[in-house]
Amino acid sequence: MKKTNIPHRFYLKENQIPSAWYNLRADMPEPPDPMLNPATLKPAVFGDLKPVFCDELVRQELDDTTRYYDIPGEIIDVYKIYRPSPLVRAYNLERELDTPASIYFKFEGNNTSGSHKLNTSIPQAYYAKKQGISGLTTETGAGQWGTALAEACSYFGISLIVYMVKASYEQKPFRKSIMKTFGAEVIASPSDTTRAGREILAQNPGTGGSLGCAISEAVEKAVTSENYRYVLGSVLNQVLLHQSVIGLEAETAMAELGEYPDIVIGCAGGGSNLGGLIAPFIRDKIQGKYNPRIIAVEPKSCPSLTRGKYAYDYCDTGKITPLAKMYTLGCNFIPSSIHAGGLRYHGMSPILSKLYHDGYMEAIAVEQTKVFEAAVNFARLETILPAPESAHAIYAAVSEAIKCRESGEEKTILFGLTGTGYFDMTAYEQHMENKIIDFTPSDDDLMRGFSGLPKI
Amino acid sequence: MKKTNIPHRFYLKENQIPSAWYNLRADMPEPPDPMLNPATLKPAVFGDLKPVFCDELVRQELDDTTRYYDIPGEIIDVYKIYRPSPLVRAYNLERELDTPASIYFKFEGNNTSGSHKLNTSIPQAYYAKKQGISGLTTETGAGQWGTALAEACSYFGISLIVYMVKASYEQKPFRKSIMKTFGAEVIASPSDTTRAGREILAQNPGTGGSLGCAISEAVEKAVTSENYRYVLGSVLNQVLLHQSVIGLEAETAMAELGEYPDIVIGCAGGGSNLGGLIAPFIRDKIQGKYNPRIIAVEPKSCPSLTRGKYAYDYCDTGKITPLAKMYTLGCNFIPSSIHAGGLRYHGMSPILSKLYHDGYMEAIAVEQTKVFEAAVNFARLETILPAPESAHAIYAAVSEAIKCRESGEEKTILFGLTGTGYFDMTAYEQHMENKIIDFTPSDDDLMRGFSGLPKI
Repeated sequence: MKKTNIPHRFYLKENQIPSAWYNLRADMPEPPDPMLNPATLKPAVFGDLKPVFCDELVRQELDDTTRYYDIPGEIIDVYKIYRPSPLVRAYNLERELDTPASIYFKFEGNNTSGSHKLNTSIPQAYYAKKQGISGLTTETGAGQWGTALAEACSYFGISLIVYMVKASYEQKPFRKSIMKTFGAEVIASPSDTTRAGREILAQNPGTGGSLGCAISEAVEKAVTSENYRYVLGSVLNQVLLHQSVIGLEAETAMAELGEYPDIVIGCAGGGSNLGGLIAPFIRDKIQGKYNPRIIAVEPKSCPSLTRGKYAYDYCDTGKITPLAKMYTLGCNFIPSSIHAGGLRYHGMSPILSKLYHDGYMEAIAVEQTKVFEAAVNFARLETILPAPESAHAIYAAVSEAIKCRESGEEKTILFGLTGTGYFDMTAYEQHMENKIIDFTPSDDDLMRGFSGLPKI
Repeated sequence: MKKTNIPHRFYLKENQIPSAWYNLRADMPEPPDPMLNPATLKPAVFGDLKPVFCDELVRQELDDTTRYYDIPGEIIDVYKIYRPSPLVRAYNLERELDTPASIYFKFEGNNTSGSHKLNTSIPQAYYAKKQGISGLTTETGAGQWGTALAEACSYFGISLIVYMVKASYEQKPFRKSIMKTFGAEVIASPSDTTRAGREILAQNPGTGGSLGCAISEAVEKAVTSENYRYVLGSVLNQVLLHQSVIGLEAETAMAELGEYPDIVIGCAGGGSNLGGLIAPFIRDKIQGKYNPRIIAVEPKSCPSLTRGKYAYDYCDTGKITPLAKMYTLGCNFIPSSIHAGGLRYHGMSPILSKLYHDGYMEAIAVEQTKVFEAAVNFARLETILPAPESAHAIYAAVSEAIKCRESGEEKTILFGLTGTGYFDMTAYEQHMENKIIDFTPSDDDLMRGFSGLPKI
């Protein structure tokens, strides 16, 4: 029965911020396949990852069995500045669509970083600080992750070097400014500051870079700098663990409202937002308590789940990272330069890949032009200008709500609105000028990507 | 006694959104002096203003006696999408300053428009729609008002033409994009679309424009277009009326927390945010119930309260508007091109001017460089990147908190954080590069401005 007495924006109380992260792996019938050391092809162990990541984060990365991780009080204190995030009922969108469905979204854009990425940048910077690390390196595509990490590092007083995909660096000058405002050093990637970058530049001097390439540079910089570590904003198990705060809060808020989602939707690039949002709902599904549909939404131009292979692959273009078993387009796959930079990654979180492979999750791929149409309409109705990444989820939620109109079903739809689009105005301008082009890789494009998969 | 058990972000419930706007004029010992018809120099009456503004807004403008205006349900419905706004306790700032003061701020930036301006753009668009008006015209300086009005017009389905101060139009291309995203037509002012614009261009072809000049163009365009009206985002009594939602919510939230401010601080350009925030606290002061200090913060480069004259003046450069009694630098005063574009106006709300004149309010003027230092430090500690306008209030709040550290007084400070700085990154970049210049008008500059005051 559709409820009409729910507030537009529902906030949990401060003491309802989760006190522990939820480690979905512990409840999966089969855990995701382990990362492999690329030299030995054996499962990566603590010592393999220790030079790259902070110790505590390595432990979290490798731990498939601990169900809950208590969140340290120092991290909760920072979460309190912007969490709990609101659960929003999209009444205006429902009215416009004339749908019997109830549409909710968990909005993670209410902080300067503008996205959910702060949920993991804070613990990653905190653990680095606690371990006495001097500085961190990372890469950023759209810039949301770099911004969130710059904020967290500034808060805890740690140095940060960000390799920013060159195409974004040039298209989004203000993303660079905001990272610098928080004290980060920002380098366009590929750069001449690393061997990986120099090699890529030598092969292709005019390249706009890619996330895979920026990862290579950031990892190299970390392991070759004194007392530095590398951090990543998506894909990894540790990141999905931290992002479980999204899903846990959403679950609690919906329960307080007497609701439970029939459909849970999130955009998927590396998978961190989706993995965090769906964690408790997948648990319910595994335990047979409820059976919500879970839908990952990816861009047609970078369709790792819908057209990729489930295989071991490198996480980066320079092939210096461990191997992860995931849905991948091949680490050599160069995605077209779409506007949702956060979704331009060749692979997908191993946890989500496993869930998709085992049938717990669906995936769809959508075109950019449709995504921007959905974004502008949403902004008009709900006073939030979404990031292009987030708008993928909006598009899918709208599609499901329209199906409900046609079938008359009063379904409850929950989607993740990961961030705001204030730094994506160039893309919105192109949309208004009808200059956005849809791109779908050909089978040949995909074959070229797959040809680079390691032979294991 | 300093309270330490207050949540970081405190949200009222949806049903605590004020059901009526509070008209402070009804409780002022002496109401502000009336607007004058510039032709007759007699107090403006309904018929004088009707060609320019929507009927209901004219009524609100001229009404000094009705204490409360019920907010129509259709407006409340839109307020619910982003209100109540949070009352935030700035614990991190307090800790950094090591102050015994408690610092609260009312944060109005949690919506796409990025500022408090939506509180008045929604009713203004609503009343226009209800009256059957075809379209609206307005001006915008920094772009916050234009964005907020574009959102509201898009929501209610009304056409909008925005005259944007040319300097901002060029410096802030993304502000223009976001207004266009919401369907507004945006014209750089001065333009050749109005007689006022053409005259100013003929005198000074290279001018970057001013708010006063853009007002002239927007008013002219409204009165010469079929079934159009003009709307303004600040200065007017009706705008302060709508913005009283800020103060009413702040009052209720503080009461629920068992707090009352000793000091209330807001930035002041035209005065809408400050007038809205302080309304209930000024009422308490007038009624002798409490005696909070009220501090207006303006930029040194445009010091209408601290160095202006209390006199009748035009609201625009083209001298086509009614005359308002206000603190003014003279409608010919051209403020230097500072970054807080929202504070670059020659005059000040007649209500605030009267309160200041009668001793209910203090005012200070601060330098840009100090404002940006305060802004960056605040962003680092509180995860909100403030608009340069809002950062004026931050600077003053920090100054007062430091005084408390020195005196040992546990004062409660409340300030208005009017908006976010996502569209001000050029300014933040200049700050990081030490390129921000402080400017204080000379006595000669002021004399030139005053020389243009109408002889009444």
